[in-house]
Amino acid sequence: MTVHPAHTRVELGDLKVPVTRIALTNGETFDRYCTEGPGSQPEQGLPPRRLEWIEERQDTETYPGRRTELLDNGKAAVRRGEARQEWRGERRQPRRAVSTGTAVTQMHYARKGIITQEMAYVAVRESCDPELVREEVAAGRAIIPNNVNHPESEPMIIGKRFLVKINANIGNSAVTSSIEEEVDKLTHAITWGADTVMDLSTGDDIHTTREWILRNSPVPIGTVPIYQALEKVDGEADRLTWEVFRDTVIEQAEQGVDYMTIHAGVLLRYVPLTADRVTGIVSRGGSIMAGWCLAHHQENFLYTHFDELCEIFKQYDVAFSLGDGLRPGSTADANDEAQISELRTLAELTERAWEHDVQVMVEGPGHVPLNLVEENVRLQQEWCHGAPFYTLGPLATDIAPGYDHITSAIGAATIAMHGTAMLCYVTPKEHLGLPDRDDVKTGVITYKLAAHAADIAKGHPGARDHDDALSRARFEFRWRDQFALSLDPVTAESFHDETLPAEGAKTAHFCSMCGPKFCSMKISQDVRDRFGAAAGASPEEIEAGMMQKSKEFSAAGSRVYLPLAD
Amino acid sequence: MTVHPAHTRVELGDLKVPVTRIALTNGETFDRYCTEGPGSQPEQGLPPRRLEWIEERQDTETYPGRRTELLDNGKAAVRRGEARQEWRGERRQPRRAVSTGTAVTQMHYARKGIITQEMAYVAVRESCDPELVREEVAAGRAIIPNNVNHPESEPMIIGKRFLVKINANIGNSAVTSSIEEEVDKLTHAITWGADTVMDLSTGDDIHTTREWILRNSPVPIGTVPIYQALEKVDGEADRLTWEVFRDTVIEQAEQGVDYMTIHAGVLLRYVPLTADRVTGIVSRGGSIMAGWCLAHHQENFLYTHFDELCEIFKQYDVAFSLGDGLRPGSTADANDEAQISELRTLAELTERAWEHDVQVMVEGPGHVPLNLVEENVRLQQEWCHGAPFYTLGPLATDIAPGYDHITSAIGAATIAMHGTAMLCYVTPKEHLGLPDRDDVKTGVITYKLAAHAADIAKGHPGARDHDDALSRARFEFRWRDQFALSLDPVTAESFHDETLPAEGAKTAHFCSMCGPKFCSMKISQDVRDRFGAAAGASPEEIEAGMMQKSKEFSAAGSRVYLPLAD
Repeated sequence: MTVHPAHTRVELGDLKVPVTRIALTNGETFDRYCTEGPGSQPEQGLPPRRLEWIEERQDTETYPGRRTELLDNGKAAVRRGEARQEWRGERRQPRRAVSTGTAVTQMHYARKGIITQEMAYVAVRESCDPELVREEVAAGRAIIPNNVNHPESEPMIIGKRFLVKINANIGNSAVTSSIEEEVDKLTHAITWGADTVMDLSTGDDIHTTREWILRNSPVPIGTVPIYQALEKVDGEADRLTWEVFRDTVIEQAEQGVDYMTIHAGVLLRYVPLTADRVTGIVSRGGSIMAGWCLAHHQENFLYTHFDELCEIFKQYDVAFSLGDGLRPGSTADANDEAQISELRTLAELTERAWEHDVQVMVEGPGHVPLNLVEENVRLQQEWCHGAPFYTLGPLATDIAPGYDHITSAIGAATIAMHGTAMLCYVTPKEHLGLPDRDDVKTGVITYKLAAHAADIAKGHPGARDHDDALSRARFEFRWRDQFALSLDPVTAESFHDETLPAEGAKTAHFCSMCGPKFCSMKISQDVRDRFGAAAGASPEEIEAGMMQKSKEFSAAGSRVYLPLAD
Repeated sequence: MTVHPAHTRVELGDLKVPVTRIALTNGETFDRYCTEGPGSQPEQGLPPRRLEWIEERQDTETYPGRRTELLDNGKAAVRRGEARQEWRGERRQPRRAVSTGTAVTQMHYARKGIITQEMAYVAVRESCDPELVREEVAAGRAIIPNNVNHPESEPMIIGKRFLVKINANIGNSAVTSSIEEEVDKLTHAITWGADTVMDLSTGDDIHTTREWILRNSPVPIGTVPIYQALEKVDGEADRLTWEVFRDTVIEQAEQGVDYMTIHAGVLLRYVPLTADRVTGIVSRGGSIMAGWCLAHHQENFLYTHFDELCEIFKQYDVAFSLGDGLRPGSTADANDEAQISELRTLAELTERAWEHDVQVMVEGPGHVPLNLVEENVRLQQEWCHGAPFYTLGPLATDIAPGYDHITSAIGAATIAMHGTAMLCYVTPKEHLGLPDRDDVKTGVITYKLAAHAADIAKGHPGARDHDDALSRARFEFRWRDQFALSLDPVTAESFHDETLPAEGAKTAHFCSMCGPKFCSMKISQDVRDRFGAAAGASPEEIEAGMMQKSKEFSAAGSRVYLPLAD
């Protein structure tokens, strides 16, 4: 899907790294980071562009893989005796490391001093030195989530030295569902700028939905495997076992999931710390594990089996997204003992994963008053040795359901400015319902602008170029360029047209806000015409110049405004 | 207009201070600050509730007032030989101080140690000590904008020790206009929470539109008189004179305008500083004055006649809103020499106004990267001795036209957290067109949440009560209370109903996001039931309690989830 007629996806260099090229009316072009993907026929999926790179490394091999079971698609599939729908494109055998001790992770290569094709690709995308990419990945301060079974992906990096990224959540639920809708939401989210997508399906057809999503996704896909594991035990948390969970993780790793949220920090002893909270535990994964711990009075099996998880992840290059199951669900509960205790455990788990060369990011809160936001990212960065922080919002107030994309964008821009590497979007439907297609777009654009505001605030090299290009277009009344350069050209143009729909208004030297007589931009042009030449002149020269210009101005009819265009 | 069935406007105490009382389903009520006004018949206007207080002070008198001219309503009125529409309610003679040297300003009374009825009213509204109100007004750190000719207003205060306020701009333009639409927008903006409204009309019927707005407004009304003055000289900035401007200010002061934006800081010598900017001068008032300075090569007449303006303002209690005519219009131009130079002049003017006991607030930028936001308010507070800062946004990035309510809410929450007293809203139409009714609402709600996020971040007494009330309702599945407590109950309820429209879902112990099996809130309730009683218990007692609870849990069928409601 083309966002705007002036937008084209072009590919740069041998690695065919995509950028969005915007053709401006003044003959210039502006290149933007592109998340859009080359486009696919959903029934066929995308070509496996990374396959060659993976094979060249000769450290993986294909194998028959786990046998898919009907229960993978939920109880309804078992009842029917078949999945409702099958993946209709090419089926590849899954791939993993040639031996169980072997790590095939980007971190492993980076630590060995190898700049992989993935890293080189990322460096072109980020306009930086490939060695910076390697260093940051080796140090654990950045991750490149690229499961060897998701060769359709275009490598991207998550780390505070790089552009701030955003994730969009999609997924069916027990209440509503449709595979087509979810694939459409995936494409829609990426078109508007999502850097990764999480499939949080909890309803029927989980396995098949995920297959369609992965085969059509040029961006990394994340999941929360406990959701599917819980489905397999009929939604009863106490019936969960490490074996069911392990099997689910392998199922998803073979499909190509690039990162998985693991709530291994919800320890038995932290659960009582939530009892006096205003909103208790609000993370689904966190509450499932808390429920399990309560039922068994045992330590969280994700924690006790964490090294085994690492052994699996390293064979596929699945990255951890260490879930913050005890994140605050209201500003009242922010930065409390439960949250901070869990963060200490996530720091410990980060180091354990790194011992296995497994890539890690750490998830962050939820609801946090603006004055406590910085502390969250400071503690995470300090305790987790710079592992990328991946935050949900945070929401700066609880009183605006229906507008939580905004309450959270406030927190998101702030936390990203202080060092969060990826922001999980929030849509207007948060707390109220499931996002539809339009909500996905609103969430993505809102988070795109929050991430970009942070890039500018951080002084990220080149980040302000985009703003300057748009501001210059605005100042020069290149309306079409303003639309084309904006994050959402469609909305920008339609808002403009509501007041001044005529084609001529697209080139008019004024707009509907002030009309032609009041146009400050026009007057500024005048100021520039008069003083631009005097830049660098002495105060006396400027003074003399102004006297002269004042006379010229009067002689020319003393009109600083354009006459109204017909 | 009633926002929601659960909302009622009630009045407290002898001063009849309004609050919005929300009836909750658990029998409790929650009182919110009310900006809504008592409601009016537009053709009659509101009762002059402050008139008695003003008369009791015996320092003002009525007088015949300036004769209204046809040109006050624009050239079209002159052409027609009559105004298109007249104010149809009661006409009162204007009122001013008994003598030219007399100040009838709230600052004057405060400095004399008098707690006026207006201050007492404000104290009830803000739940604070009346003496705090008096002190802050006396020191110039807060203003109560209440022209003696706007007795319909319900006093409110703007200052950093009080709740952060928001302003909504309305007004017709040369391109589109209708008096009815503007009065409707006024009421709509106040209904949703605007604390003050600026009438920025630039089209025909300016005088009459303003009369309708003032007579129907329970909140202070601000204007930018230079817009009307420019209309009177046919839109030619160089034909502006102090005399035309002065006459316009008196016209508006007699009507009851509570504060006026005056661009007296755009000095001749600052204009060249804008020549190399990416977006020059973007303030309309600033560009008009810059145009005038250029044309005449003379100092800004608003600066040279500033003391005369003070003499006028003190007779009516009009407050200054010192305009930042050189504010940055793009992130590239933020905190530059032009902007900072003007701020120094605004600081000088603040002190000059205070010498006349005239109330002052200072306007702030525009477009500012997030990392430079704090510096703006720090410098303003320091240089202007704590005079209230009144900021537009600021917008944290330039690349999202159509979403500038959000780019600016990010900056607004941040700048308010650091001490801005009032935020001027930005609607989704900013940079693109004139806001319609829906845009006004979106802008107001967005700024309401940004202001509230700042109140929480500042630890303002009681600010978080609202969040806690909503969060508790959320945790306890009181859906109707969640809607009623939210800033926009209508949108919250309709978003919920899109996924789960059935009436039963309003009391369901789950929602569409997770469905009944995944409900983390439910699990948290379980956790609380098990540990709530143990608060204050020793670790050993908790341990023992957990063992016991684990057994009970298993005995009860080990179900942590509610069965699906029918």
